[in-house]
Amino acid sequence: MSTALKQLSQNKCFGGLVTKYVHQSAVLGCEMKFQVFIPHQQSSTTKFPGLYFLSGLTCTEDNFIQKAGAQRKAAQLGIALIAPDTSPRGLNIKGEDDSWDFGTGAGFYVNATESKWKNYQMYSYVTQELPKLVNENLPIDPSRISISGHSMGGHGALICALKNPTLYKSVSAFAPISNPTDCPWGIKAFTGYLGASNKHLWEQYDASILLGKYDGPVLDVLVEVGDKDQWLEEQLKVHKLTDKKNEKVKLEVRWQEGYDHSYFFIQSFVEDHIAFHAKHLQ
Amino acid sequence: MSTALKQLSQNKCFGGLVTKYVHQSAVLGCEMKFQVFIPHQQSSTTKFPGLYFLSGLTCTEDNFIQKAGAQRKAAQLGIALIAPDTSPRGLNIKGEDDSWDFGTGAGFYVNATESKWKNYQMYSYVTQELPKLVNENLPIDPSRISISGHSMGGHGALICALKNPTLYKSVSAFAPISNPTDCPWGIKAFTGYLGASNKHLWEQYDASILLGKYDGPVLDVLVEVGDKDQWLEEQLKVHKLTDKKNEKVKLEVRWQEGYDHSYFFIQSFVEDHIAFHAKHLQ
Repeated sequence: MSTALKQLSQNKCFGGLVTKYVHQSAVLGCEMKFQVFIPHQQSSTTKFPGLYFLSGLTCTEDNFIQKAGAQRKAAQLGIALIAPDTSPRGLNIKGEDDSWDFGTGAGFYVNATESKWKNYQMYSYVTQELPKLVNENLPIDPSRISISGHSMGGHGALICALKNPTLYKSVSAFAPISNPTDCPWGIKAFTGYLGASNKHLWEQYDASILLGKYDGPVLDVLVEVGDKDQWLEEQLKVHKLTDKKNEKVKLEVRWQEGYDHSYFFIQSFVEDHIAFHAKHLQ
Repeated sequence: MSTALKQLSQNKCFGGLVTKYVHQSAVLGCEMKFQVFIPHQQSSTTKFPGLYFLSGLTCTEDNFIQKAGAQRKAAQLGIALIAPDTSPRGLNIKGEDDSWDFGTGAGFYVNATESKWKNYQMYSYVTQELPKLVNENLPIDPSRISISGHSMGGHGALICALKNPTLYKSVSAFAPISNPTDCPWGIKAFTGYLGASNKHLWEQYDASILLGKYDGPVLDVLVEVGDKDQWLEEQLKVHKLTDKKNEKVKLEVRWQEGYDHSYFFIQSFVEDHIAFHAKHLQ
């Protein structure tokens, strides 16, 4: 491992290892942490397919790896998990900690263009800088990568895959913010990071708009939503995805009766998502 | 449901329901919260066997239900889970929040005799008051109950079962404090709650001493320990259990290579424990 990556903790889990790393991010201009699960290694040359998981508002690198119950199936199917943080931290930008849905913990996986938030380059971080660092230092096969996420991170996963047609083998999302250009969380974030007037740029980070325009290899997309999700109507607007028809996108939206927005919902279906990605990664 | 129990939250999980309740505890003299998982109900008269899980130092009612990944197997096998808090809270006893290993979050599942800590009656709470409340209000079969726990809660589970020979069908523990009368955490807690001089009383809450004296129906005990547990030598002293021979106690201690004290360890083996208890509960 290069000195770029410093290990903060390591715990054995289902025969593999959960490791928390910290590194200096050039793209974000601050230290960033992430969690990785590497299944049990048969040999020192084994490389695993990798599933990135982007978390939602207020989360850190810890939530998914501690609460989703994903390691059991990932160990069984030989899939590595990579869980980044959700924003830069500790930059001392005025107001960065004022809201739970903007600034710290709410990077929204875009590249900010407003000068005040110039460090908020989470799109480049999760699609380029972090994968490069992971591929150079950890036993993960760069040619077999998929992506998933929850809520704001579901939006992140969808746009990362739709904007990079050959980077990911498959994409899935739990309760994604599906049309951020037209919901309060998205409008607040895009106004702040991208500027109020730059609607053309906003559309480049909107999953439902990108889905309509996607023109890469056929992409399998699995979306999981609870019909009791408290954010469904106002913020998530998942029907905006199903409204779009595109023969290049094989979208399956699974509506789960009685489930909400919580990690109890995620843990109930995360193994289905890992199996879905494994099918594309192996 | 009686008015004694107030619902704070409810989330669907693996087809069942995770519900957080609060109630006024007469035994502890404060409000207490607990989490319950009830598997999917086939009918309104179904009653489920119940597994109590006692958490460790600094934990609340949330840690096990959020981080252990237990609901998947519990749903599959039709076992209800009950996760209490680890101490009374908010009593305004001088010094109650000074230490992470004494007072708030560290009730140690004993009945305090020192007057200052008279509200710390966690032994009566988890063996009597809480089960009575649960049995009267929730679809749980009082005749099919088992108990498990982690660290301080592993100690709690073992002493509850060993002191109440017919109350629990089986007992298990993850990394239990096995000989609290002879380790720093235990000595601090027992000195504070039970008094420095009352060694006879201390012994009534020590799993390794109780195991030697147990004289009830044959009791199956499963103990899981990681050999990289950072507390093993100084605090847990699990070998004090295996040193004792008692034909009434069928003790299996499973040493897990490379595992530590964390919830990553618990989630790796929790399904084995649920299956172990299910065997005794069904």
